[in-house]
Amino acid sequence: MKHIINPPISEWASLCKRPILPNEYLEEKVINIINKVQMDGDKALKEFALAFDKVSLIDLQVSAVEIDIATNEVTAELKEAISIAAHNIRTFHLGQKENELIVETIPGVTCWRKSVAIANVGLYIPGGSAPLFSTILMLAIPAQIAGCKRISLCTPTDKNGNIHASILYTASFLGITEIYKVGGAQAIAALAYGTQSIAKVDKIFGPGNQYVTKSKELVQKNGIAIDLPAGPSEVLVIADKNADASFIASDLLSQAEHGADSQVVFLTDDQTLVEKVKLNLLKQLKKIPRADIAEKALANSFSIAFNSLQECLDFSNLYAPEHLILAIKESEKYVDKIENAGSVFLGNYSCESAGDYASGTNHTLPTNGYARSYSGVSLDSFIKKITFQKITEDGLKNIGKTIEVMAEAEQLMAHKNAVTIRLKKLSDEQ
Amino acid sequence: MKHIINPPISEWASLCKRPILPNEYLEEKVINIINKVQMDGDKALKEFALAFDKVSLIDLQVSAVEIDIATNEVTAELKEAISIAAHNIRTFHLGQKENELIVETIPGVTCWRKSVAIANVGLYIPGGSAPLFSTILMLAIPAQIAGCKRISLCTPTDKNGNIHASILYTASFLGITEIYKVGGAQAIAALAYGTQSIAKVDKIFGPGNQYVTKSKELVQKNGIAIDLPAGPSEVLVIADKNADASFIASDLLSQAEHGADSQVVFLTDDQTLVEKVKLNLLKQLKKIPRADIAEKALANSFSIAFNSLQECLDFSNLYAPEHLILAIKESEKYVDKIENAGSVFLGNYSCESAGDYASGTNHTLPTNGYARSYSGVSLDSFIKKITFQKITEDGLKNIGKTIEVMAEAEQLMAHKNAVTIRLKKLSDEQ
Repeated sequence: MKHIINPPISEWASLCKRPILPNEYLEEKVINIINKVQMDGDKALKEFALAFDKVSLIDLQVSAVEIDIATNEVTAELKEAISIAAHNIRTFHLGQKENELIVETIPGVTCWRKSVAIANVGLYIPGGSAPLFSTILMLAIPAQIAGCKRISLCTPTDKNGNIHASILYTASFLGITEIYKVGGAQAIAALAYGTQSIAKVDKIFGPGNQYVTKSKELVQKNGIAIDLPAGPSEVLVIADKNADASFIASDLLSQAEHGADSQVVFLTDDQTLVEKVKLNLLKQLKKIPRADIAEKALANSFSIAFNSLQECLDFSNLYAPEHLILAIKESEKYVDKIENAGSVFLGNYSCESAGDYASGTNHTLPTNGYARSYSGVSLDSFIKKITFQKITEDGLKNIGKTIEVMAEAEQLMAHKNAVTIRLKKLSDEQ
Repeated sequence: MKHIINPPISEWASLCKRPILPNEYLEEKVINIINKVQMDGDKALKEFALAFDKVSLIDLQVSAVEIDIATNEVTAELKEAISIAAHNIRTFHLGQKENELIVETIPGVTCWRKSVAIANVGLYIPGGSAPLFSTILMLAIPAQIAGCKRISLCTPTDKNGNIHASILYTASFLGITEIYKVGGAQAIAALAYGTQSIAKVDKIFGPGNQYVTKSKELVQKNGIAIDLPAGPSEVLVIADKNADASFIASDLLSQAEHGADSQVVFLTDDQTLVEKVKLNLLKQLKKIPRADIAEKALANSFSIAFNSLQECLDFSNLYAPEHLILAIKESEKYVDKIENAGSVFLGNYSCESAGDYASGTNHTLPTNGYARSYSGVSLDSFIKKITFQKITEDGLKNIGKTIEVMAEAEQLMAHKNAVTIRLKKLSDEQ
């Protein structure tokens, strides 16, 4: 972890650039996969499973028997934890429901928006280096609150053709049974365009590796909606002298263990904290199984000592972190200074893992600086808001002239005529 | 306009496919334009203005003098109309502000979302075949309600290097003075990546031709946020025997005059209405200046007579129209049957032009079937919702175990440790 002291503002923008893992011909490779799925459907999916995962699949869809077996394998302790996390996530996302507000903009002209669920959604759950069953909770619970009619889930198998029990259990706990043994770029293509077994969806959600991400990017270009543009996960911690160096180190490591391309950033106005955090990182690194991954991520990461907390906050707003931890005294006072971030954790006991799993907030968040313009996944991600308007005869009399004048000025006379012809009928009737 | 009677459901999907105007090498052309703007900045913009529009520009930014001249040119009548429309649009979009809801998901764990404006937004306003000043109202008013810090506007000039007075006046009426004489794919590239004169923005809004649309699609692939994927404008009218054939014809034409690639669809359960609408179309076509454009659009369009209103609604939900007019008796009764549409107009006097200009709803809407998964532009389009959470010491005691169990099951031990280390400190302190 590189340490920088008071960098001049002119250097901030380049510090905010995220590390990129090169992958030559990634786009060409993914385009080929998508084309093959569009052409050959299920056959292509089975061929890719054999080629990439060395698995020979007969059925793509998970059977009820497989779900039963998984349910028996998951411990009571984990079942209890999943149930508590689901409760909190449901509670928070239920609060995102909006009431319809009917607005009469001018007498006789009423307008409102109605939230309607996106009918068919597809969830991608990675199963590679860690079985991310928590992501099922984060995506399926708001989808169910929204009222999506169909929730399809794709996830890769292990070398034996099995899906991790915790993934199958979590899906089935939520009542999701449409689960397919398909991973990678080909899963995204199947959800986007449909195959014999997998019906196409209207929107695709979920994280993944570079192939999955590129595949989502390419199908979006063809008009398929996706949750968010994606990049490696990241955390930025701002701490003052009241923070606990061992807590900070644990938060940095919990992000660093995600992947070699993750980035962690530590900002402080207290120079002495930097050395303490460094020592704690070394100490804690020894104890975690994914230390090799975390070390690679730390090599791409940095800490900065600034003169003031204000500079820390300014830098953070420019960086636009996915996760932002404010380990500072009276952290609530700084809420209004946060301009760009995915999810913010206030104080010494609001650790990022809490939001990753169980506090109730969503963990699908904008990375790579996208927090400047994107929100994380929420109930909003699973609905469309359709506008409605009802104009009475009097209402049209009230705004008719305005429409006619504007349409004429835009040289759109048929637009004008749609009003004129109605106003004429109303005046003829009088 | 092709007329179809009771098509079998098996044919519905192909009827819902939108006409596509072929444009060979469009993507390659636009990639070249974007690359040149990224490389040469302002110089490229001026070269494109000369090559495409035969205009030699000295300054890209519109001057205060030009705005003053435009303000004098616009009639008092149009100024009044713009003011009324702005009032209605502001009233409707102000109603979209959300209150922060603080949710305690479990004792000691509080979570909420805060709406924060996207700092820098870029608006593209076409100036080609019609000066669409109304789009400035639709985009800039919600941007101002959201609190965006900077609103930049790009619009092409005419052959004399001038921007239409109504565009300059509307922008200046709203207090927008950062206006650039740049059109086409190159304007999108300038807003996305910045040039010497034009600072880059965080999100790009606005309609345009195929080049503009393709350019937005390509910069989005590189992580620049855009409002909506775009396609030609469209309307679907559902009418029963209580509808007025002349009104329906006027609504169909007001959509058809937008462009040769626009599509209009007319559905009814009353066969006799079809002929009446056809006669009214012929009659009204003769009177509109853009009849040649409207005729081309009508050639790509169709009407269907179904046996029931329910089938009309089912077809409409599959088509997912940008604009949907329900010219049926007691139209409010059908609101809950609408699953996919951008904006819905209820009854005989709610004409689409009203929503295009002045009723208050936004006219930037999902086309091309995107209404299945996208909402139109609203206040939401100009904000991010940042999640916050505050976990107290007791809160962490309440959910700590849950997090530890889940993190361990996902094999992310550093995530677990961030909790363990805190719980240990709390128990040591007791």
